Amino acid sequence: MHSFLELDQYEYVDSHQEEYVQTLRDWVAVESDSSDVLKRPDCHRMMDMTAEKLRAMGGKVELVDIGVQELPNGQTVDLPKVVTAQFGSDPSKQTVCVYGHVDVQPAKLEDGWATDPYNLTDIDGNLYGRGASDNKAPVLAWIHTVEAYQALKIDLPVNVKFIIEGMEETGSNGLDAMIMAQRDSFLSDVDYILISDCGWLSRRPALTYGTRGNCYFFAEVEGPKQDLHSGVYGGTVIEPMTDLIGILDTLISPSGKILIPGIREAVAPLSDEEWKMYQDIEFDIESYKSKIGVSQLMYNNKVDLLAHRWRYPTVTVHGIEGAFSAPGTKTVIPAKVIAKFSIRQVPNMDPAVVKKQVTDYLNSVFAKRKSPNKLKVTMVIGAKPWLADTKHPLYEAGKAAVKRVFNVEPDLIREGGTIPIAKTFEDVTGKSIIMLPIGGFDDGLHSQNEKMSRYNYIEGTKLFIAYLHEVAHLKKN
Amino acid sequence: MHSFLELDQYEYVDSHQEEYVQTLRDWVAVESDSSDVLKRPDCHRMMDMTAEKLRAMGGKVELVDIGVQELPNGQTVDLPKVVTAQFGSDPSKQTVCVYGHVDVQPAKLEDGWATDPYNLTDIDGNLYGRGASDNKAPVLAWIHTVEAYQALKIDLPVNVKFIIEGMEETGSNGLDAMIMAQRDSFLSDVDYILISDCGWLSRRPALTYGTRGNCYFFAEVEGPKQDLHSGVYGGTVIEPMTDLIGILDTLISPSGKILIPGIREAVAPLSDEEWKMYQDIEFDIESYKSKIGVSQLMYNNKVDLLAHRWRYPTVTVHGIEGAFSAPGTKTVIPAKVIAKFSIRQVPNMDPAVVKKQVTDYLNSVFAKRKSPNKLKVTMVIGAKPWLADTKHPLYEAGKAAVKRVFNVEPDLIREGGTIPIAKTFEDVTGKSIIMLPIGGFDDGLHSQNEKMSRYNYIEGTKLFIAYLHEVAHLKKN
Repeated sequence: MHSFLELDQYEYVDSHQEEYVQTLRDWVAVESDSSDVLKRPDCHRMMDMTAEKLRAMGGKVELVDIGVQELPNGQTVDLPKVVTAQFGSDPSKQTVCVYGHVDVQPAKLEDGWATDPYNLTDIDGNLYGRGASDNKAPVLAWIHTVEAYQALKIDLPVNVKFIIEGMEETGSNGLDAMIMAQRDSFLSDVDYILISDCGWLSRRPALTYGTRGNCYFFAEVEGPKQDLHSGVYGGTVIEPMTDLIGILDTLISPSGKILIPGIREAVAPLSDEEWKMYQDIEFDIESYKSKIGVSQLMYNNKVDLLAHRWRYPTVTVHGIEGAFSAPGTKTVIPAKVIAKFSIRQVPNMDPAVVKKQVTDYLNSVFAKRKSPNKLKVTMVIGAKPWLADTKHPLYEAGKAAVKRVFNVEPDLIREGGTIPIAKTFEDVTGKSIIMLPIGGFDDGLHSQNEKMSRYNYIEGTKLFIAYLHEVAHLKKN
Repeated sequence: MHSFLELDQYEYVDSHQEEYVQTLRDWVAVESDSSDVLKRPDCHRMMDMTAEKLRAMGGKVELVDIGVQELPNGQTVDLPKVVTAQFGSDPSKQTVCVYGHVDVQPAKLEDGWATDPYNLTDIDGNLYGRGASDNKAPVLAWIHTVEAYQALKIDLPVNVKFIIEGMEETGSNGLDAMIMAQRDSFLSDVDYILISDCGWLSRRPALTYGTRGNCYFFAEVEGPKQDLHSGVYGGTVIEPMTDLIGILDTLISPSGKILIPGIREAVAPLSDEEWKMYQDIEFDIESYKSKIGVSQLMYNNKVDLLAHRWRYPTVTVHGIEGAFSAPGTKTVIPAKVIAKFSIRQVPNMDPAVVKKQVTDYLNSVFAKRKSPNKLKVTMVIGAKPWLADTKHPLYEAGKAAVKRVFNVEPDLIREGGTIPIAKTFEDVTGKSIIMLPIGGFDDGLHSQNEKMSRYNYIEGTKLFIAYLHEVAHLKKN
C-alpha cells in the first residue's frame, strides 16, 4: 500500500521530469567510452561530474584512486577514479549500497545511428543517446530517489551508499581491488547491494537473479613485417588473414554448438524447476524476432531460447583489427590481424579454465595449418557469472515494490549480459545482491540508437523510492 | 652508344634533381585516394595540377570528362577527369602514348607509417610518401623527359602523347569507355603505348611483359536489423559474422590451393620455355623473405615462387567492413558484415566466368549452413590480365635503352599486380604495349612507408630519355 509520503514523492518526481531529462542530456553529452584510451579525459570528467552532483546533495563523497591501466604497448594511463558517496549513517537503519557505472560502449554516428549518439534526442518519448539506458539514466534515477526524499524533507528509511565506476564496459579494471580494499571500511556496514545495470525482458517489470560472465579474447596472427600489395605478393606468402579465418571457423558450428573441447561439459545441467520457471515467463518469440529483425532464431521454443540466452555459453566474433575495414576497395595483404571474440560464461564455468581451453585449442588448430605466421591468444577480460537466490527477502521486497508502482507481479529473469562486479561484491562482502532493472526490453544496449524511455526513467525512479521503503522493513542482519 | 645530345640531357636531369623532388613533394601532398569518395575533391585537384603542368610546357592538353560514378547507395559523384596531352604532331615520326595515373591507395599515419604519408620525406635518399612510386614519380619522370628535350632545344625524336587518369587504384572506372571513344581521334595515330606503373624485381633493371588481372568481390552477410549486445542476444541469433567466416574459410586451403571449382582448371599450363626463362631471372629468395619479414614462403624454389607471383591466380581476403575493427574491446554482434576479397586473374581466366564461379560456389556453401541471414556476392572490379610478346621490337628498344643507361641487360619479368588498362589498350587500339618500370623492388606499393628512391627517380628519367631515342629508330608501322 502506498503511504501518503510516498505519493508526495511520486508527484515530486513527475513534476521534475524535465529537469531529470536535462541532467541525463548533460551526462550523455560526455563521451565516456572506457574502451578507447584517447577518450580517457572524458571518462575522468564524467567521474568528476558524478562526484560533483552527489556532493551538491550533501553526500559524503570521495573520488577513489584505483591506479593505472597498462596498455598493450607497455605505457600506462590513469584509470577513472571510482566515486563513493554516503547519505545517512544511522546505525539503527539498514544500509544499502547502489552500484552503477557512467562509462559507455563506443558509438559513432556513422555506425548507423539516426541521431548524434552524444546528443540526447527525444523522439516520441524515447530518449536516444549512447549510455542513456546503460547505465546513466538508472544511476541518475537512484540519485533522484535520494533527492526526492531530501526535497520533501522525508528521512531516508535506509542509509544509502553509492559506488559509481567508469570502467564497467571493459571489465571493471581496478574495481575488484578497490572493493577488496574497502571491505572493512566503506563496505563494512553495507547490508545489501543494489544494481540496476540491466533491463526488463518484456513490457512487464522484472527482477534479475543471474547474469552471464564474459571471457574476451584477442587472437593475433602476425606474418610479414608490413602490409603487402596483394597483386605483387599474393600467392607467395602465407597470409595472416587466411590463417585467422581458418582458426575462427573452428570455434562454433553453424547451429551454434561450441566446438572448443571442455566448454559445454562444464555447464550446469538445466533442472526441472528451472525449466518450469522458464515456461511461466512472459516472453513472445515473435515479437523478439521482429524486434531484432530476423526471420529465424537459433531455437524456436521459449525455454530453449531463454536458456541459451541466460544459462548456456555462446561465442561471438566481434571483428578483426588490422584488416581493411573501410568502405570501398583496398588491395592489401594485412600483415597483422587481431580477431576479437568473446565467450559468455555461466555456472559452472571458470574463466581461468576457459582461458586455457581456448588457448590450447586455437594453438592446436593453428599448428595443423603448418603456417610460418605467429599466433598469440590473450584473454583480456575474464568476468564470472552471478546467480542469486530468488527466495531471499530482498527479492520479496522487490516484488512488493514492483506491485505497488506498476500493479503487476514482476518476472524473475536472468541476464545474458555481464555485470562483472556482481560476483566480486558477493565474494568479497558476503552480502546479498539484487538487480532491479528499469531499462526497457528494447533499449538497444551496446547497439546503434540506444535509448531510455521517459516512462521507464520516471516510473523507474518511483520504483527505487518504493524499494527503499520496502527494504527498510526487512529485518536488520 | 650515347649521343652527345643525350649526355647533355643526362647532365640536365642531374642538375635539376632538387626541382624534380620538389614537384614530387607537391604531388604527394595531394591525398588523391580514389577509393574514398570523400577525397574526390583532392582527386579533381590532382588532375587539374597534372593538366596545368603539361599545359605550362606547351602541350596540347585536355581534361576529358568521363562521367560519373554510381555509389552503392544510388547517389552519383563525378569521376576525376582524364588528362590527355600531346607534344609534337610530325606525321613522319613515330607517336608514343604514355599512360600513367596520379590517384593513390588509402594511407593513414596510424596504419603504421614512420612519416606522414602525404608529406614526402627524404631519408637516406629514399623519398617516402603515398603514391611516390605508384605512380606519381614515374609520371613525373616522363614529363621531365619531355622537358629535358625542350630545355635543351632538342627536337623530340617521336611525338609524345599522355593519358593520365585518376581512378586506377579502384579499377580505372570510366577509362575503358573513354579509350574506346577516342580510338579514332586522340589514339588514331599512336604507334606504341608506354606504361611505367610497376617496379623492378631486384636491383637489376627490368622490362615487364605481363600483369595479372583482378576480380574484387564483396560478400555481404546481413542478419539482424541492427548491431546487438552480444551478452543480451548471444546464443539466440545466428550471427552474420559466424556465417561470413564460415564461407571465407572455404575459398583457399592453408597451402594456398584455391578451392573454388573451375578456377585452377582455367589456368594456362606452364611451358618448358617459360620454366627456363624463370630459371634465368635474377631473384634471391632469401632477400625476398627478409624484405617482407617472413621465415617461410608458400613455395621454396625460385620457379614455383615466381610462377605463383605472376602466372597463377591467388585469393586474398583484405578485410571485413561492418564488424568491430578498432583497438580495444566491444561486445557487439555486428548486424551486417561485408568481406572484401580478390582473386588475381591470369591467362586464360575470364572475369565474367570467375564472377559466376565465385558467386555460385559461395551461394552453395552458404546454403549448406541453413542460415536465415542473407548473402549477397558482388564483383566490384573485374580486370583482365595482360601478356606481351617479348620478341617485339619495342622490347628490343627497351633492352638497348637499359643497356645504355645502366650498362646491364634487363630482366624480362611479369607483374603480380594489375594494370587493368593494359588489356583495354591492346584490345581497343590493336597497338603494342611495353611496360618500362623504374620503381624499385622494395618500394612498398599499397603498403605503409611507400617510397621512391632518388636513384630510381633520376636514372629512370634518363632511361625514358634514352628510350625515346631508341623508339625513334624503330620502323614506322
